[in-house]
Amino acid sequence: MVRAVSSLRRRFAAGLLWCMAAVGALAQPVDPLPSWHTGTAKARIVAFVQAVTEPGGKDFVAPGDRIAVFDNDGTLWSEQPMYFQLAFALDRVRALAPKHPEWKTKQPFKAAVEGDMKTLAAGGERGLLELVAASHAGLTTDEFAAVVKDWLATARHPKFNRPYTELTFAPMVELLAYLRANGFQTWIVSGGGIDFMRVFAEQAYGVPPQQMVGSSLALKYALRNGQPVLVQQPKVAFIDDKAGKPVGIHKAIGKRPIAAFGNSDGDFQMLEWTTRAPSARLGVLVHHDDAEREFAYDRKSPFGRLDRGLDEASARGWTLVSMKNDWKQVYAPGR
Amino acid sequence: MVRAVSSLRRRFAAGLLWCMAAVGALAQPVDPLPSWHTGTAKARIVAFVQAVTEPGGKDFVAPGDRIAVFDNDGTLWSEQPMYFQLAFALDRVRALAPKHPEWKTKQPFKAAVEGDMKTLAAGGERGLLELVAASHAGLTTDEFAAVVKDWLATARHPKFNRPYTELTFAPMVELLAYLRANGFQTWIVSGGGIDFMRVFAEQAYGVPPQQMVGSSLALKYALRNGQPVLVQQPKVAFIDDKAGKPVGIHKAIGKRPIAAFGNSDGDFQMLEWTTRAPSARLGVLVHHDDAEREFAYDRKSPFGRLDRGLDEASARGWTLVSMKNDWKQVYAPGR
Repeated sequence: MVRAVSSLRRRFAAGLLWCMAAVGALAQPVDPLPSWHTGTAKARIVAFVQAVTEPGGKDFVAPGDRIAVFDNDGTLWSEQPMYFQLAFALDRVRALAPKHPEWKTKQPFKAAVEGDMKTLAAGGERGLLELVAASHAGLTTDEFAAVVKDWLATARHPKFNRPYTELTFAPMVELLAYLRANGFQTWIVSGGGIDFMRVFAEQAYGVPPQQMVGSSLALKYALRNGQPVLVQQPKVAFIDDKAGKPVGIHKAIGKRPIAAFGNSDGDFQMLEWTTRAPSARLGVLVHHDDAEREFAYDRKSPFGRLDRGLDEASARGWTLVSMKNDWKQVYAPGR
Repeated sequence: MVRAVSSLRRRFAAGLLWCMAAVGALAQPVDPLPSWHTGTAKARIVAFVQAVTEPGGKDFVAPGDRIAVFDNDGTLWSEQPMYFQLAFALDRVRALAPKHPEWKTKQPFKAAVEGDMKTLAAGGERGLLELVAASHAGLTTDEFAAVVKDWLATARHPKFNRPYTELTFAPMVELLAYLRANGFQTWIVSGGGIDFMRVFAEQAYGVPPQQMVGSSLALKYALRNGQPVLVQQPKVAFIDDKAGKPVGIHKAIGKRPIAAFGNSDGDFQMLEWTTRAPSARLGVLVHHDDAEREFAYDRKSPFGRLDRGLDEASARGWTLVSMKNDWKQVYAPGR
């Protein structure tokens, strides 16, 4: 009898425990950022989202004003050993080279054809843009999109031997979805070409073509065989980098964002414009410190250099995300 | 007895009629465009919307691709006797004139201060833009928005003696709402200044700041007393008119619209870009032919001239909307 009661008690206790666990699982909110380790960065992001979405809370922001802006290169996908769009432009210059004998002696084309990265880097941003402009010009916007699509389907990253579109950061894709689920409108604000990004951004990030700010070439409206087209001109119309980012944001969005995510000093003014305000704001810098799973660079890279941002992040209340320590995974597993 | 039966029959018949009327009212869809007279224009608009939203239909368009673009001046609100933003710029030039003695002799400022519309019109679009650039420059985007807001709250239209924001076209505001209710994203694509429109467009049309394409001045990012600002420069950055409209649309939206609404030859390329395509498209021109309720002009106005569009609308399958015959009301009743 004692044993029977004891057995009953045990069964009852086990049942009770099971019930408590089940209720606990129900009460426990699902982790919206499972690829992020518990830590300061994740805690700050979640606390910010909770603060601005809490009805009646002192930091509440109406859904229409929940604008979050994301740099692309180095923030949403990798940017080493060179900006992926630069890899595209170099492939394009090499493909077009036979038709341009003058490129054999003219910089930066000579360096591009020869793969001379040192000379290319020395030419700075202006040189790279010249290269992009010349190699992208003459195509209509539709033709350009087709060329980019083909390239993305075939080109592979030199280190990871995977298509470039598989090198988006899983924790950031998660973060974009988390923000949207909380009523944010997510925008990409990149120094990269707007029409290059539009080819893959909706599928990769869930960001549609009309929520994109980027650098662009001049376009010319024309009729070809009676059909209207927009032809890319060999002239840079807008450079969406550094102090150009707040300008690009204003032109496209017309509102000041409440959250900004970047990784380099090219994003400095975007974070400043977003966060230096009297209300609740979030500024985040992704720090590339993971040599094993991605790349480790900050003050020493020709692409995506983080210098001033690293020095001033703490004083400005910006959150530094360590890819090494804050992310459980960098890329989604290969398909 | 016969009378009793007859009375019963009458009552029954009356009840039946009532029931039929009630069922009929339920079956009858609510008119989504009550300010529009029944006619070709309304029928074409409604047929187009039904065609592109019918699931499984041959003309079905996914909601994300249902982009509709609207010119503003003359399409969503009046533009006579001069563009409302020009009236604003003239008031601003007059207010600033005491600080600019050089304007007494320099055109187009002299004409602006003196209200010499003939000289102003003769200077063409470039002259007007110069005026706008000079009178808007130096202000930050926030300061500019405040000045426009003040002006809209106090200025009155010379003919109707109502605030300019009451001179939006009720049938078009209805149409915007009808399209949005059918999954369209509605955009304004105007030759007017983007930051001028943003001040009132959300309240007037339900179109948020980030769904606006317009002409713009160059902006400069700066810190004033430690606070980041965007300062309007005395330099036109983009003219969103004529062949500039498809360019502006592509830069901002990155998709080709499926419906375009305009009223002048400044909208010609926008309608061409939108409608010359193999799938179902809608091109609409609002024709100002109502001298009594608004203004009657087409080939003879310096602002909003409709010439080529009027000649080619029929061949291009564009719908002409007669303000006089297609609209039950032009403006919403005064408050």
